[in-house]
Amino acid sequence: MDILRQGPDALASLSDKFAQSDLPVDKSLTLESMRFLPPIGRPGKIICLGLNYADHAAEGGHSRPEYPSVFLRSATSLVAHGQNMILPECSEQLDYEAELAVIIGTRCKNVPVEKAQEVIAGYSCFNDGSIRDYQRKTAQWTVGKNFDATGAFGPFFVSVEELPPAAKGLRIQTRLNGVVMQDANTSDMLFPVEEAIAILSECMTLEPGDVIVTGTPAGVGAARKPPVWMKANDLVEVEIEGIGILSNTVASQKQHGSQIT
Amino acid sequence: MDILRQGPDALASLSDKFAQSDLPVDKSLTLESMRFLPPIGRPGKIICLGLNYADHAAEGGHSRPEYPSVFLRSATSLVAHGQNMILPECSEQLDYEAELAVIIGTRCKNVPVEKAQEVIAGYSCFNDGSIRDYQRKTAQWTVGKNFDATGAFGPFFVSVEELPPAAKGLRIQTRLNGVVMQDANTSDMLFPVEEAIAILSECMTLEPGDVIVTGTPAGVGAARKPPVWMKANDLVEVEIEGIGILSNTVASQKQHGSQIT
Repeated sequence: MDILRQGPDALASLSDKFAQSDLPVDKSLTLESMRFLPPIGRPGKIICLGLNYADHAAEGGHSRPEYPSVFLRSATSLVAHGQNMILPECSEQLDYEAELAVIIGTRCKNVPVEKAQEVIAGYSCFNDGSIRDYQRKTAQWTVGKNFDATGAFGPFFVSVEELPPAAKGLRIQTRLNGVVMQDANTSDMLFPVEEAIAILSECMTLEPGDVIVTGTPAGVGAARKPPVWMKANDLVEVEIEGIGILSNTVASQKQHGSQIT
Repeated sequence: MDILRQGPDALASLSDKFAQSDLPVDKSLTLESMRFLPPIGRPGKIICLGLNYADHAAEGGHSRPEYPSVFLRSATSLVAHGQNMILPECSEQLDYEAELAVIIGTRCKNVPVEKAQEVIAGYSCFNDGSIRDYQRKTAQWTVGKNFDATGAFGPFFVSVEELPPAAKGLRIQTRLNGVVMQDANTSDMLFPVEEAIAILSECMTLEPGDVIVTGTPAGVGAARKPPVWMKANDLVEVEIEGIGILSNTVASQKQHGSQIT
């Protein structure tokens, strides 16, 4: 967050320093030995789009929307690559959703579509884990999207210049225990990245470190017959071409009753 | 936030120091000469309940709910006491909503109703300003609740021991240009404060500085015939007995097009 707030040059400079080995990096470190954190640990806001792929909207019985469905996630719902996504005690309906996460680099408002690319710092993978019965308790999805440790985010921050404009044309997949459950392309978004930025920034100022989670394609567990819910010890992977593989196991929340700490 | 994170004793200690004049306070300062900030400037989350008074649910054509409607606001939507609430360029439908704000003091999860009082640090007033046409663009209200500078919050942080348990029995009003538009009592909530904390903390960890905005009673502008929208230069006041008067003027957002800063 601090680097993003300093502007695009700070990020480029940091990248140069790593490339030139000016920074003390232990070359013996392996990815496997590292504990990941979310690329942004406490985003100012995490703005999620629902029903942003036509095939997913259709599988849920929704018509093609004229405006995106928007909800927010909170930082307490995040979980890093390699950590457990938590199946809560109160539900059995933990579902996966592969999504492209857009990380904002520039404070902005009322951004036109043709300038939206300029405010993006980078991208990552997101698994917008959803507790479906809570999501549907009322018309507002927010509760079902904000359970602790259900929103997996990572592993990598891929800077904007490393990917095609607006991250178009990238294959996006979910695999559950190795079986492909979602398989689509980021070009199939109903509201592509630039348009999402324009629409959202009409309403709210976007700030460095804000995250836009751009919706999921068809194939979610809830739409299958019978439904497929994730259970303890499942391995779920979200892969986006050119970004990486976000991998999480599922664990049941221990029975712990009241926690006031 | 820093004081809340240090726990209830830190808050009591600060209060004692002010009472004993151990802190350097300029006694010539008047409330009128001060510029207020929101009681919490960047809450970790701002959790809002919809349709939490039976009369307001009824005026919107909703039946009495079995679970609260929940959405989140972001910090960029906040505005302090005495500042302008902003009517955006893209809409004329800025509406007021008087609400009791509950400020969490203790990190907690799965809090039973009978212990909910323990995790509250204090209360404030909230005007959950809503851009109604955007709120209704889809079934998700979030966008209409997150326009910049539409969520007025303040003026005072009133600590939990200064009010009745769960802030019950307090008169809550909105006045628009001096005319009473909402007039109810916090005892009329469908999901009272303790129950809201129990319900929300089943899903998500609550943290010090998190804010729960507990819904609005009948009388909103959108439900009137014809509807009443706030316009530039209006004065809107939310008063809650024992807490204070949250006062804001309304200003039109200047036409400024793209802003990338």
